[in-house]
Amino acid sequence: MQPLKLSLALDMMGGDHGPQSTLPAALAALQEFPDLHLICCGDQRVLEQHLAALGVAAHSRLRILPSHDDVTMSDKPAVALRSKRDSSMRHALELVETGEVQACVSAGNTGALIAIAHYVLKMLNGVERPALVSALPSCDGRPVYMLDLGATVNCDADTLFQFAMMGAVMAEEVMGISAPRVALLNMGEEEIKGSDQIKRASQLLSDCHELNYIGYIEGNDIFSGKADVIVCDGFVGNVALKTCEGVAKLMLKRAKQNIQQRPIAALLSWLCKPVIKSLYQGMNPDHYNGASLIGLRGIVVKSHGNATKDAFLSAIRQAVREVERQVPAKIKDRLEQVLIDKA
Amino acid sequence: MQPLKLSLALDMMGGDHGPQSTLPAALAALQEFPDLHLICCGDQRVLEQHLAALGVAAHSRLRILPSHDDVTMSDKPAVALRSKRDSSMRHALELVETGEVQACVSAGNTGALIAIAHYVLKMLNGVERPALVSALPSCDGRPVYMLDLGATVNCDADTLFQFAMMGAVMAEEVMGISAPRVALLNMGEEEIKGSDQIKRASQLLSDCHELNYIGYIEGNDIFSGKADVIVCDGFVGNVALKTCEGVAKLMLKRAKQNIQQRPIAALLSWLCKPVIKSLYQGMNPDHYNGASLIGLRGIVVKSHGNATKDAFLSAIRQAVREVERQVPAKIKDRLEQVLIDKA
Repeated sequence: MQPLKLSLALDMMGGDHGPQSTLPAALAALQEFPDLHLICCGDQRVLEQHLAALGVAAHSRLRILPSHDDVTMSDKPAVALRSKRDSSMRHALELVETGEVQACVSAGNTGALIAIAHYVLKMLNGVERPALVSALPSCDGRPVYMLDLGATVNCDADTLFQFAMMGAVMAEEVMGISAPRVALLNMGEEEIKGSDQIKRASQLLSDCHELNYIGYIEGNDIFSGKADVIVCDGFVGNVALKTCEGVAKLMLKRAKQNIQQRPIAALLSWLCKPVIKSLYQGMNPDHYNGASLIGLRGIVVKSHGNATKDAFLSAIRQAVREVERQVPAKIKDRLEQVLIDKA
Repeated sequence: MQPLKLSLALDMMGGDHGPQSTLPAALAALQEFPDLHLICCGDQRVLEQHLAALGVAAHSRLRILPSHDDVTMSDKPAVALRSKRDSSMRHALELVETGEVQACVSAGNTGALIAIAHYVLKMLNGVERPALVSALPSCDGRPVYMLDLGATVNCDADTLFQFAMMGAVMAEEVMGISAPRVALLNMGEEEIKGSDQIKRASQLLSDCHELNYIGYIEGNDIFSGKADVIVCDGFVGNVALKTCEGVAKLMLKRAKQNIQQRPIAALLSWLCKPVIKSLYQGMNPDHYNGASLIGLRGIVVKSHGNATKDAFLSAIRQAVREVERQVPAKIKDRLEQVLIDKA
């Protein structure tokens, strides 16, 4: 059953702050999108309490779907999959599967979300493994899509090839970049570098005329604007993304120390506060953008576990954009075209 | 034959700047270490010209060993190994092998240096693969040793275990950190995360009482000061280190843009210049510290390809420190002890 209206399911209980972040974000989204309908999955009593605290008795486009269990941040994926069938996360994903909603958003346990989404929604034909993809900032102001950020630890060449294809579709459809430049993350730009999987994936990508493959890229060029889509396995992508967060923290700490050591410390510190604050916010992309779990037969957006109201709202916006652009259908079409051309 | 004096071989022709950086650094090192003897490997005519230009006719503790070929930055490792036998890089490594010097320093092609060093010097007993290790900055001011930064792409659990051991010896001997906290870089802190190699390596490390193994660490904690030694395979380490460089560049660019957007831009920009400069220098660790190639039967320090005089001098200092602390012998002793305890 295809829904007639723009509708999303939200996992209200996920993330470090639960309904404290997710409910204000949901209400803001309803205001921003007049056609949007939300099914809020979670503990009915808790959600009603929070609604009341916000001075909202009811909303015609917001419905609560009660759940009686929670996936916690420390649950192992396999355990969450097996034993948390009455959780808000599971319900939200099932609503996508039945077609009652067009996408879901969660700030919950990433590993559990991937495992349950994989089980409930299944993979698109031609895609073997899901990928987490996020738009990162770059020096030239254009966003760069990087995947996989942690959904699939070990990737063979075919999987990397499929990730490249899916990333290109995201960049084209969601960000409107035509013929996005696709690169493989490697430890050198020369053809001889890297693991066997990477070399084979590079060959597959070179042979594919549907993609604008530009070759290898190194870590120092992730943010340089050289590529629009950067492909790597989930382990490398996860480490690289989290390393960014670590470097950003270190640099901001050092900047503050440096400022304090200057003779005009007090003035400088006062003057630089807004610079440092805006810098910090800009450098935590996954705090401010949702990551999309792609390759599945449905749209799943993962907000950061530590998501604030604004971050969760931004993830909802992203889900709306993906619904409007019909991302899974576009990925499916593109993969089919490649398979036909290969045959 | 054990040398009686402190002596190093320098690959004078390596790096982007060749003798323009390496020669002034060599002369500064001779001034800094009154016992140091240097064998400068390179094109005799070029080196003599540079010496003359610096107003130095000869130095009693500097000897030139002529070479007639160069390993270029674009040479493939296998080609450099086979066909560049009369290069300054090869000569410098052979001087370590024959015992004429105690260590060598090169700013040349990293892949070629690893391949030739591996061939010429051979591995220590009990070590299967070499690792590149460097001391990175951390939030609490203590350096953190990270390895492998790109010498060995695919590492099995035993190799990661050996890297952990070698990293701990470096932290103890070179930096004087007692019972250094050793961590494995992973995509989550939970025991269930990561690849099979990582999980097996974690088991090996947990079972080893000679090491202060603290478990997994994520990318955002590389610089947080949680660990003294961080172990990963060469692919992941290389990407993580280069990603740091990319993030640092992006942040500095954004900081400058942010400053320019402020109403008091000119004043702020002028006041912040030294802060930004010192920040940039502090965040390019591999520009300012040499990386050591360890696991070999000799000391090899790799300076950054873009090394300035100061960077190359810093790599020479590091080589001297490793000679004084007899790092390869200490690694050998430690590994033997572990093997005895296991038996």
